[in-house]
This record gives sequence, structure tokens and C-alpha cells, in this order.
Amino acid sequence: MRGFTSRLSHARSDPPAGDDMAALPPSTLWTVDTLMDGVDFDSRHQDWRQIGHKALAVSLSDCAAMGATPTGALLSLVLSARLTAEDARRIFDGVQACGESFACPLLGGDTNSWDQPTVISTVVAARMASGSAPVRRSGARPGDTIFVTGKLGGSIRGRHLHPAPRLKAGGWLAAHVPPSAMIDISDGLAIDLDRIAEASGCGCVIEAAQLARVIHPDAEALSRETGRPALQHALSDGEDFELIVILSPHQLAALEHADAPQLERIGRCVAAPGLFLQEAGGEPAPLQASGWEHFR
Amino acid sequence: MRGFTSRLSHARSDPPAGDDMAALPPSTLWTVDTLMDGVDFDSRHQDWRQIGHKALAVSLSDCAAMGATPTGALLSLVLSARLTAEDARRIFDGVQACGESFACPLLGGDTNSWDQPTVISTVVAARMASGSAPVRRSGARPGDTIFVTGKLGGSIRGRHLHPAPRLKAGGWLAAHVPPSAMIDISDGLAIDLDRIAEASGCGCVIEAAQLARVIHPDAEALSRETGRPALQHALSDGEDFELIVILSPHQLAALEHADAPQLERIGRCVAAPGLFLQEAGGEPAPLQASGWEHFR
Repeated sequence: MRGFTSRLSHARSDPPAGDDMAALPPSTLWTVDTLMDGVDFDSRHQDWRQIGHKALAVSLSDCAAMGATPTGALLSLVLSARLTAEDARRIFDGVQACGESFACPLLGGDTNSWDQPTVISTVVAARMASGSAPVRRSGARPGDTIFVTGKLGGSIRGRHLHPAPRLKAGGWLAAHVPPSAMIDISDGLAIDLDRIAEASGCGCVIEAAQLARVIHPDAEALSRETGRPALQHALSDGEDFELIVILSPHQLAALEHADAPQLERIGRCVAAPGLFLQEAGGEPAPLQASGWEHFR
Repeated sequence: MRGFTSRLSHARSDPPAGDDMAALPPSTLWTVDTLMDGVDFDSRHQDWRQIGHKALAVSLSDCAAMGATPTGALLSLVLSARLTAEDARRIFDGVQACGESFACPLLGGDTNSWDQPTVISTVVAARMASGSAPVRRSGARPGDTIFVTGKLGGSIRGRHLHPAPRLKAGGWLAAHVPPSAMIDISDGLAIDLDRIAEASGCGCVIEAAQLARVIHPDAEALSRETGRPALQHALSDGEDFELIVILSPHQLAALEHADAPQLERIGRCVAAPGLFLQEAGGEPAPLQASGWEHFR
């Protein structure tokens, strides 16, 4: 871990100490995410500060999904040689601003450059509140109820550029319930809920009438452009960065607590493995995880 | 953090659980290093398994320099689309084998691919032995003695491909001395010692007669090829991954302990800031950190 101070020292008033490793508050969880220009973001159409902000926010959404509290971040930048010092500073500022918004200090990192497109890796460490355990994907059971923390679909209309990780909701639930399972919606409700179903060895039924009540206005607007149903956008667009929260019957009472996050019911867990969509008055029908095949 | 299980599940019998974050033994230090094909390694001439092994070893050398014990690693791979599944498996196997050699389990990670050269990021977390503090670069003081853990120079003849991080020596010293300062030699003795001098606000004098006794046979052999002095190779070649260890006068006695690592004296710290080389019988002369200018 070097180069961070030397290459970006102009970008900050308080550079890391430059030791071989950075100090980390005691932590028991961690994650790394790598984003590539032209694949995960497009620097031709996005501002570097926004790209940096999102790079960290996406990792913090992983923290939220475990019910964890972030303790700090590392940033590893591989800068395209065509970037200016100002571009590099804006990435750094975006990461740092996101960290400040969510109490996750940027503790160090590594900067390199090359003739290829820019690559941004963010590493986030976290801890659980005293006495609480990480919420896994694998704890969903038949009879559990499926909730989400907010409205879904159409994030491409702009929300995808500045995700707001649900750290507060995830942390509260882990400390006070804890849920059977959680995951954040990055690839899309259907894909991410299918991951819970697969890890838990059960089935998940999305009830269309319930999902219809959590369709984001962006999904409605996008539906008018694409001609595809808004419900489909809610199922498959992704980058919502809301949480899917699975609660067993005896966990439901916790939601009546005054400080509990607002959760929206969208379905239920069943014994038959797989992912299903149930139209109002109909039977559960198998749903492709992408949510796309069903509607085509 | 996703994709790791799905893309590399064929590569291991015991895949990570696939949660949003990986579990980490309680840790208080961490580092990230990113290596790029064509910059930090060359996949046309190196085996992917060796590249993976070295990627982790380089980060573990950072642990050694802090006197820390590694607790685990994360691997973030951005694979060139032209790599085969076997290539990817070999990177993974190399990282895992290195982790097993140095008691640093691979705990999770992230795999992506794109049309550009391969990028490998390794993240290592660590802890200090009970009661010991991380050894910084900044603690060297005038009157201290400068040591190294092994012979230097000419690593390009092959040693650079399979670095052996000095975790045992670094850990013992941190727990039983601890040294005023330590750093690992990655960029070269002169550059890395200069980092200690700069961080500590003192000067470092390399005594040529002492250094002559720790010149690696590879540096002698390389000298015969390049026509440059073997001493210069020891000063500036880099990728030795030995430790520079700075000890104050009252710390020297610890080296007489039966379990103490073998250290070779190469110089002393002085009040005048900067890096110096002192030929036998001469005065200390300023030395460019690269070690190159002095000899040209």
C-alpha cells in the first residue's frame, strides 16, 4: 500500500501516515468491490466526483445488507494516464464525501496509473453492534414474509448515480430483530431475491399486487418510454440499493417499534425452491431471476 | 462483493458463503495493493499461479514491516476477457497457496472481467500480538542503528518472482523489542530507507563496507552482466522483500535472544536529514534515493 500519499497529497490536507498498513478500528466484516470505466461506469458521461461517491456507496450498501456499521474504507485507484490531477482529486473527494456522509472514514489506499481505462477498488470494513450477529442471505424459511425498504425500478433515470445505502435501517433491524435474511438490491429485485432463495434453500413468491404498491415513480416514467410494464422495471432494473428484508412470523412485532424502519411487504417465502411471481387471484408462477422472460 | 463464488466456484471445493461481506477475525490493520498486467507483472512471461502468489506475498510483506500477524485476505480480480478459466483458476490457486504458506486464509473477494489487461487487487488485514504496537516508519532517531534481514540486490534474476515475506522476523521484533522503525524493501534499499528518513525527520547513513557484506550473490552475478557495481544493485534493484529494521542503542541487547532473527548491520541514523552513503574511510556523501545518480 503505497503511492497514495505521494500521488494524491495535493488532494488533501491530512494525508495518511504512509506506513505499510493503515490502522483500522477493530472490525469483523469486510468487502471489496472493483469498478471499471466502460463497464461499471462511463467517465464520458459521468462526473469523477460522482463516480467516486458511488464507488464507496455501493460497498456501504453491502454493509447495510449485513446490518453492519462501517468502520472505515480503503481506496485503490488505477488511473488512466489521460486523467488530469483534477480528475483524480475529484474521485478522491467523492469517495471522501460519501465516507463522511455515512460515518465511514477513508483510512488509506493505493494509487497507480497506466495506459488503460480507470479501475476503482473500494474496501470497506465493518463491525456489528454489540451482541448482534451479521444478517446472512441464508436464513429465510417457508412462512417468512418478504419486505423491501423502499420503492423500486427506474433508477437509471438518475437515482443510480447517487445511491443512499440503507445503513440506518439495516443496522436497526440487525440490532433489534434480527431478520431471517437480508440483501441489498443491486442487480435487481428478482436476481437479488433469487440469491436469498438459493442460499436459504427455500422459495420466494413476489405478490404482484403488493409489488405494485412499491413501484417507484421513475419506473412509471420509464415504462412510458420503454413500453414495458412498470412492474417489470421494479423487478429487474436494479441499482435501487434498497434492502430486501425477510422476517419470520415472530419477528413481525418488532416493526411496531417507534424507531423501526418503514418496510413494505412484497411477498412470502415458501417451501418449493425457486423464485415465483403471483398475479392477483392467480397461482405462483416461476419467474426468471432477470424478471425479463416472464413479460416478453 | 459478488461474482467470486459464481465465477470461481469451479476453482475451489469450499466456496465463500456468498454474503455481502466476508467474516474477518478481529483486525486492526489493513492494506490494499493493486497489480496491473503490463505494469507490475507481465503475463506473457510469467505463470498466472506465480503472479497470484506474488500478489498476496507483496501485501504480506507490508504486514511483516509493521510487525503484524495477518488475519486474512480478500482478492479482487478483474480478468482480461482473453483469459481462460484455467488461467483464472491458477491466479486463485497461487493466492490461496501463498495464504496457506503464511497462515493468511483467503476469506472472499470479487471477480469481474473486461476487454482490458488483468488487474489483481489484494487486501490483507492483520492484528498485532497482544500488548505490542504496530512498528511505524517514523520512529528512527539519531544514534539508532540500521539493519536488514537478509542479502540484497539482483532479485530480478528470479527471487522477485517468489518473495518470502519476513513475517516471522517482523512479528518477533514487534513483540520482543520493538524496533524504532521498520519498512520492507520493495522499491529498493535506498528508496525505502529514504522513506524512513523522511517519515522520521532524521538522516540515514549507509556504510558501504557494511553493505558490502550483505550483497546477494544475484547482485554479484548481475553486476558481471551489467558492468554496474554489485553495491549499486544492492542499493537500488528492489523487490528484495527483506525488512529494514532500525534499533535504538537500548534495543540492541534484544538481538542476543536465542529466538531473535539474524540481522545485518548496514549503517546508522544521524541528525542531518537525508540519505547518505559513506565509503570506507570517507565522509557521508548525499545519496540519491534511487542509488543510481551516485554511481553514474
